[in-house]
Amino acid sequence: MQQHHLVLGGARSGKSGYAEAQAEALGPVRRYVATAEAGDDEMTARIAAHRARRGAGWQTVETPLDICAQIRAGGADAVLLDCLTLWLSNLMHRGRDIEAETEALIAALPNAPAPVLMVSNEVGMGLVPENALARAFRDAQGRLNARVAAAVPRVSFVAAGLPLVLKGG
Amino acid sequence: MQQHHLVLGGARSGKSGYAEAQAEALGPVRRYVATAEAGDDEMTARIAAHRARRGAGWQTVETPLDICAQIRAGGADAVLLDCLTLWLSNLMHRGRDIEAETEALIAALPNAPAPVLMVSNEVGMGLVPENALARAFRDAQGRLNARVAAAVPRVSFVAAGLPLVLKGG
Amino acid sequence: MQQHHLVLGGARSGKSGYAEAQAEALGPVRRYVATAEAGDDEMTARIAAHRARRGAGWQTVETPLDICAQIRAGGADAVLLDCLTLWLSNLMHRGRDIEAETEALIAALPNAPAPVLMVSNEVGMGLVPENALARAFRDAQGRLNARVAAAVPRVSFVAAGLPLVLKGG
Repeated sequence: MQQHHLVLGGARSGKSGYAEAQAEALGPVRRYVATAEAGDDEMTARIAAHRARRGAGWQTVETPLDICAQIRAGGADAVLLDCLTLWLSNLMHRGRDIEAETEALIAALPNAPAPVLMVSNEVGMGLVPENALARAFRDAQGRLNARVAAAVPRVSFVAAGLPLVLKGG
Repeated sequence: MQQHHLVLGGARSGKSGYAEAQAEALGPVRRYVATAEAGDDEMTARIAAHRARRGAGWQTVETPLDICAQIRAGGADAVLLDCLTLWLSNLMHRGRDIEAETEALIAALPNAPAPVLMVSNEVGMGLVPENALARAFRDAQGRLNARVAAAVPRVSFVAAGLPLVLKGG
Repeated sequence: MQQHHLVLGGARSGKSGYAEAQAEALGPVRRYVATAEAGDDEMTARIAAHRARRGAGWQTVETPLDICAQIRAGGADAVLLDCLTLWLSNLMHRGRDIEAETEALIAALPNAPAPVLMVSNEVGMGLVPENALARAFRDAQGRLNARVAAAVPRVSFVAAGLPLVLKGG
């Protein structure tokens, strides 16, 4: 299997920047798969800031749901999925079957033509949310992270822009 | 002292699964000490899911408060306390003296006949809660984790099902 | 440059106690730079508890904003800034330019006459806050932590009173 890599971290932990640097070390042609949807001004500004930071050498594909097609597609030295948290949120918002979508993601990885870096949020280290939907999201995110972590050879945990190795050195 | 082990992690971090695997490596007779109280449907479902995952080779004891008696009891190769967070919540809910209860827990550990694995939540890595009771709980959880961590030879921090060693290798 | 050290952790993670122990190993004269403002009873009690724990061998300076002057001042074997999170909160509350203040902090470090230990909170590992101001604070804290982490030779992540090395061993 390719050296797929899950990059976990909190909000503003520097996880995307770390994943970008890892992708840039893999070759000159990088595909950035953005799952964010520019639904409001705040998110539009975040997307623009991410895009400006990446600069040249990156193709950008925006897809809120169909990340498996991007994992299977060729033509790049590395694929960066940013991020599984927004993908999960997009799926839940549309009432999709999270278990089936997770299985499809896991199944796509062994046949990927290039290494896939997946950025995901750690969201379970605060207090229990009072809102039931928030608890459900937190649980789903935790399960998704553990499922993907078990399926890839490398997992990093980023804080303040610096990685700790959880798996694979 | 026995190789007692504190397993920290966020919600849905895989900390219970990791602790169960550690306990299963210690011998065929495992006691699971559940501090959860099945107060509503959501918690009842969580307890059932945990129980189904463990399968054979586990005795289950449900006790919201008296974990010290379970630490002192013999007859198992390993004892898994899941979790200190619900135990703390149960104590606070009843107005118990947290300092005295913590002292009793720490004092019970050196004489335990079998290794005790203790699962606990990391709850302090979000923003400051607006609610004073939530802040008090967060503070008490942080202090409890540090007290227990200082008293045992092994401490792990689990994210996405994968452990980082905080103490004891 | 001096062996400046950023100490990250959640609330009640034991990060201040760890940083104090590190400072005490550097020499007998320690300066504690407190950025907390005793605005209410809860904060007043926290400040008193921190002060009681430190004991002898510490000078205490209270300054909500001007930490750079304390970094540049001589006369101590170690300077402990506790904490960047309250400093950031104080700056935002007064409408200061966070980018300029961060630059000034980074610029002060290379000329410091003594090692500076900086305590800061990890606040981004919970769910997305519903409140826009809370999101802005969380983002600013994450950026500040990453900026300082990049500028100093040592960074630790503390949980349950125990450090993980993020940078510098």
